[in-house]
Amino acid sequence: MKAAAACGPERAAEYVEMDEEHNVSQAEEMLMAFNMQSWKPWRRARSMVKESVQWVQATVSSVVGLHWLSYVALGVLTALLSFCMNLTVAKLLRAHQWLTSRLEGHALLQFLCWTLYPASLCALSSSFSHSICPYSAGSGIPEVRCMLAGVELPDYLSLSHLFAKLVGLTCSLAAGSTVFLGKVGPFVHLSTMLGAYLHRLCASAAGVKEGRPKQEMLVVAAAVGVASCFGAPISGVLFSMEVTGTHYALRDYYPSMLAAACGALAFRLLSVGSGEQETVQALFKTTYSTHLPFQPAEILAFAVLGMLCGALSRVYLLCHRWILQFTRTNAVLSKIIATEKALYSAGVVFLLASVTFPLSAGHFMAAKLSMNQLLSSLLEETQWYMVSQNATVPQGTGDSLWQAWNPSGTTIYATLGVFLFMKLWMLVLACTLPLPAGYFMPVFIYGAAVGRLMGEGLAHASTNGASSQGTARNINPGGYALAGAAAFSGAVTHTLSPALLALELTGQHTHAVPILLATLLANALARARHCPSFYDAIAIVKKLPHPTSLLRTCPKLLSVQLGQVVQVPTAVLESQEGATSVEKLLHSSTEMIFPVVDSHESGVLLGSVSRMQLEAFLHGRGERGLDKKLVDQCTFQPVKIQLSTEATIKQAYSVLGAVREQCLFVTERGRLVGVITWSEIKRIIEEFAKDTSKH
Amino acid sequence: MKAAAACGPERAAEYVEMDEEHNVSQAEEMLMAFNMQSWKPWRRARSMVKESVQWVQATVSSVVGLHWLSYVALGVLTALLSFCMNLTVAKLLRAHQWLTSRLEGHALLQFLCWTLYPASLCALSSSFSHSICPYSAGSGIPEVRCMLAGVELPDYLSLSHLFAKLVGLTCSLAAGSTVFLGKVGPFVHLSTMLGAYLHRLCASAAGVKEGRPKQEMLVVAAAVGVASCFGAPISGVLFSMEVTGTHYALRDYYPSMLAAACGALAFRLLSVGSGEQETVQALFKTTYSTHLPFQPAEILAFAVLGMLCGALSRVYLLCHRWILQFTRTNAVLSKIIATEKALYSAGVVFLLASVTFPLSAGHFMAAKLSMNQLLSSLLEETQWYMVSQNATVPQGTGDSLWQAWNPSGTTIYATLGVFLFMKLWMLVLACTLPLPAGYFMPVFIYGAAVGRLMGEGLAHASTNGASSQGTARNINPGGYALAGAAAFSGAVTHTLSPALLALELTGQHTHAVPILLATLLANALARARHCPSFYDAIAIVKKLPHPTSLLRTCPKLLSVQLGQVVQVPTAVLESQEGATSVEKLLHSSTEMIFPVVDSHESGVLLGSVSRMQLEAFLHGRGERGLDKKLVDQCTFQPVKIQLSTEATIKQAYSVLGAVREQCLFVTERGRLVGVITWSEIKRIIEEFAKDTSKH
Repeated sequence: MKAAAACGPERAAEYVEMDEEHNVSQAEEMLMAFNMQSWKPWRRARSMVKESVQWVQATVSSVVGLHWLSYVALGVLTALLSFCMNLTVAKLLRAHQWLTSRLEGHALLQFLCWTLYPASLCALSSSFSHSICPYSAGSGIPEVRCMLAGVELPDYLSLSHLFAKLVGLTCSLAAGSTVFLGKVGPFVHLSTMLGAYLHRLCASAAGVKEGRPKQEMLVVAAAVGVASCFGAPISGVLFSMEVTGTHYALRDYYPSMLAAACGALAFRLLSVGSGEQETVQALFKTTYSTHLPFQPAEILAFAVLGMLCGALSRVYLLCHRWILQFTRTNAVLSKIIATEKALYSAGVVFLLASVTFPLSAGHFMAAKLSMNQLLSSLLEETQWYMVSQNATVPQGTGDSLWQAWNPSGTTIYATLGVFLFMKLWMLVLACTLPLPAGYFMPVFIYGAAVGRLMGEGLAHASTNGASSQGTARNINPGGYALAGAAAFSGAVTHTLSPALLALELTGQHTHAVPILLATLLANALARARHCPSFYDAIAIVKKLPHPTSLLRTCPKLLSVQLGQVVQVPTAVLESQEGATSVEKLLHSSTEMIFPVVDSHESGVLLGSVSRMQLEAFLHGRGERGLDKKLVDQCTFQPVKIQLSTEATIKQAYSVLGAVREQCLFVTERGRLVGVITWSEIKRIIEEFAKDTSKH
Repeated sequence: MKAAAACGPERAAEYVEMDEEHNVSQAEEMLMAFNMQSWKPWRRARSMVKESVQWVQATVSSVVGLHWLSYVALGVLTALLSFCMNLTVAKLLRAHQWLTSRLEGHALLQFLCWTLYPASLCALSSSFSHSICPYSAGSGIPEVRCMLAGVELPDYLSLSHLFAKLVGLTCSLAAGSTVFLGKVGPFVHLSTMLGAYLHRLCASAAGVKEGRPKQEMLVVAAAVGVASCFGAPISGVLFSMEVTGTHYALRDYYPSMLAAACGALAFRLLSVGSGEQETVQALFKTTYSTHLPFQPAEILAFAVLGMLCGALSRVYLLCHRWILQFTRTNAVLSKIIATEKALYSAGVVFLLASVTFPLSAGHFMAAKLSMNQLLSSLLEETQWYMVSQNATVPQGTGDSLWQAWNPSGTTIYATLGVFLFMKLWMLVLACTLPLPAGYFMPVFIYGAAVGRLMGEGLAHASTNGASSQGTARNINPGGYALAGAAAFSGAVTHTLSPALLALELTGQHTHAVPILLATLLANALARARHCPSFYDAIAIVKKLPHPTSLLRTCPKLLSVQLGQVVQVPTAVLESQEGATSVEKLLHSSTEMIFPVVDSHESGVLLGSVSRMQLEAFLHGRGERGLDKKLVDQCTFQPVKIQLSTEATIKQAYSVLGAVREQCLFVTERGRLVGVITWSEIKRIIEEFAKDTSKH
């Protein structure tokens, strides 16, 4: 060691590494590499930097594990991404607004500006994202659900995908409330991609032996996605819990909460730093009167609202499923979408924008408001109808966002009605756009409008009933809007986390119980008779291997026994296998783990062997002779868990998820009859989906 | 059928049942029973009631499943129980208060009243509950955690236990803030007992075929326990999630949420109905100013508070573990606790009450306030020190609960300090009381006091610093108290749900992020170096089979391979087994499921057979001859999942939890080498605990 130190610090550092590795041949290679790299400049500076980085790494990881730091980093990075995207989108939206206001008086120019700006942005979004990564269109949550359930979809976690989605989403969002698309779905996907990247970094820094399972990072990342999009940590964690297959591993709970809290905190602190907010607060903060937020009897009205939202969600989901099928089966449309994505996007957005043009139907549906303004206005405590009828109250008091809902020549009931009717089909149409975009926020706002309509009606009715007693200000339509938003979005996605999200978004805890009640009832109606959720429908159409989705279309599948569906594995090794056949097998198969049986005839399972072991076996062949058998060279991994042919697919799925293995072996009295992997489950599911679509 | 109808409706109804069963011998038995019961009065009325009950049952269960109704019923019943208990306790507390106030001026009588009232109540509680059910002492959460993890502990779910715990807990709570005990732990246990009872009712009503797993009901009940104790549904669900072993089954999520929402709603509506509250609100509602709840820089202070609470929790947990060991190992004390429970309880409570007597040390620790008042006062927004120093502000304004913290002759810093110092050992001492009581609320209040002390200090310092600018009212000590409560209770129990509970209890969503941050940091400190949590420590001392607890004392246990610990099963059947040896086995063993091997020599596992099947086999022996073999009469259940001897205990535990089986078989190349059941896991754990305590 002392001799090494004499060669200078840079060599010493590398000698230390070698010392640790105790591998002479590798040390020689490194010395060669060192000599080859010696032309590089700043040798001393580089080695000092390297040493100090190593020192910092060692010091830090002796206090907290590297993976904890990666969770915190994930939270902060995602929040930063979210904040920057918000800033960019706001600038692009303001540019559009400024341009439209400058063209005041020139109706045609205004129309062109109103329609072509979002159309060109969406065309850009879809062509750009498609050219970088063909899979980047859509929300991404159906794919994230699959990955959280344990299926490997490496295409959906690449860095190029991250870039495509980031740029595409920014363009989609900048198209504004005309196209009516949201951010949260793609953001959850973005966050998982970032998480997967950080996980790779961590694994390479810490070495394989300390690596944590990637699954854990993905679950954490899903929570962070929601948390840093809305600054809502706990509902983020609940969301990630709800989308992870059948079992949630509790060891992911604390890391998720930590990362989500960091993400939410960073996101809100960035808002404070940029001067948007004075302190860390809810994103759509409401300040309802806390003295008597609602009468106990109003809980019934909230329950009715929940059921109404549940029923409406079924209509919406029906339309959504229909249009998904239609765009796939209609020959002309499917060809256009497949080949002319940019043109299709531009065309659809032009149509949507024409409808919402403020001098046409847009006048009656508050088209001038942005997505955030729509939500803020709907959540206001003011009783719109009362104030609009009451001429003595100056209409300009306070925030006048809601005035957009009360244009001259109509009432707010008519505007809300037109909004609900038009946005339904527009939303369904927007779902066919081949660009990265989220569908949660639009649904949330739609639900808020439903709740608002009901709340206004109730407030009106109660005033008419009790006008003599002067108790007109008792009913708060904003509370109904909040409950409606949570209930409708919960029903569409079949989740309960929107109830908590509504609370965290507004900081309005007074309405916690009625919101939860409405969301529960809406969910009950939406889930009845195995109706697939929004994400289920996409997963089914895209044929993603997501069992919960499949359960909706084919509930009997999960009780099918493995013996009926499992296929005899082709990539099986004998214990006496020689090097030639091992080499052939490695070339013909892409599996990572191979089962080993005592002989192909008896088929008794002895254990398994990994691709890495087999490669080492082939590598060692040259030195140690050609006639060596596998059994002499490799130690087989024992098979820890065996499934029998009588086990059901559901049990196989539960076990696969619980132990987080990539493959399980199916045996019958010790004989290997099949291998269950995620891709095998995908194959089985696809076969069944084919069968069900035939019948 | 028509002939049967002629015999009258009551017979017809029974004929219908028989018709469905298609079993002639049973029908004959029923006819005999009918003739025997014909002396019972009101035959017609009874049959009409029976028929209409059946009709209602059929109609209801065609709309919603019976189990959904049982979840709702569980929520409502638990809330009712909670409400009634609160009423009783409030009456008993008021009686004590009245008595003490009547004895004003007679110090000795007052002292006797102050000390003997709680002492006798606690003596009553421990003797009563012990005489009805010896296991009913303590919080019950450690046992509930075991049951949720899948272990069957039937003694802890009996109705007599329910009754003992109910009465005992009421008495313990009525002893008031002197003894400083809470309600939530035993209430979670009460709720699971009620749930298990409802599950039995449901199973008998719906028949075995439709029965849902009991596990599901227990998970739901744990959530309901917290929800109806505090009116906090979402944190109840999070709590039940955190205490269920390693994996949370997502199919329990929606039922838990539904039952918890019903429980919380019913609990709060009962408060409204009784006139306590005007509408459905948070239990300890706070109304902090929402404009600027805290400065962004204060987040650092919250983080420091979290770490302080984490460090304090380690001290508390150390004392707690020490006293648990001491009461078990000290010969005199353990004998007194074992034989003279009532005397011991009375003695300890007398000591505690003497210390808190308002004319002694109680004067300096706000002893006059009840538990609820303590919490409410600590959460107030008022800056106590500022107000107490400021003579111009009339001290009687508004709620004057906090005045108890500012007795004459001292400052609030001294009172809070005395409170924190005294309550620490009093709380640890109270944990040894052999009576049903919870330890969560005391810890929550203790944490609130820690936070309050820090908040007051900060407010004082910031005023001194900025007195020239007149920004004295910026810092809100109540927020610190809330964060401290969540952080300390979270650290002691190693859970994160207290963060959400603090929000739901107070409805104060403005402080969501700092509370979560403080709880996360406190948890990180408390969990470092495998320190056992409060419940873990109890589980270890009571030797409950809870693996997560065991992991704390002996982390290497879970990676032990099954081959090293599993025992050769004794209750094994051969396929050719005759009736005599089956009968012998049934008498000698208490297992419910028996493995079947082809012969005892080869030991190849063929399947399993249940006790019920074996009893039917023995029953059929008389008719069909003595020489029948098991293989001819019974169809063996196929073994769906096999573990190998190389699988670890952790994997066995994960699989057992994930598929919710009661037993798994361990095989080695098809030969049966062991059976893994929950009792087997308990045995292994106890052996290891013995080994670790030796070394």
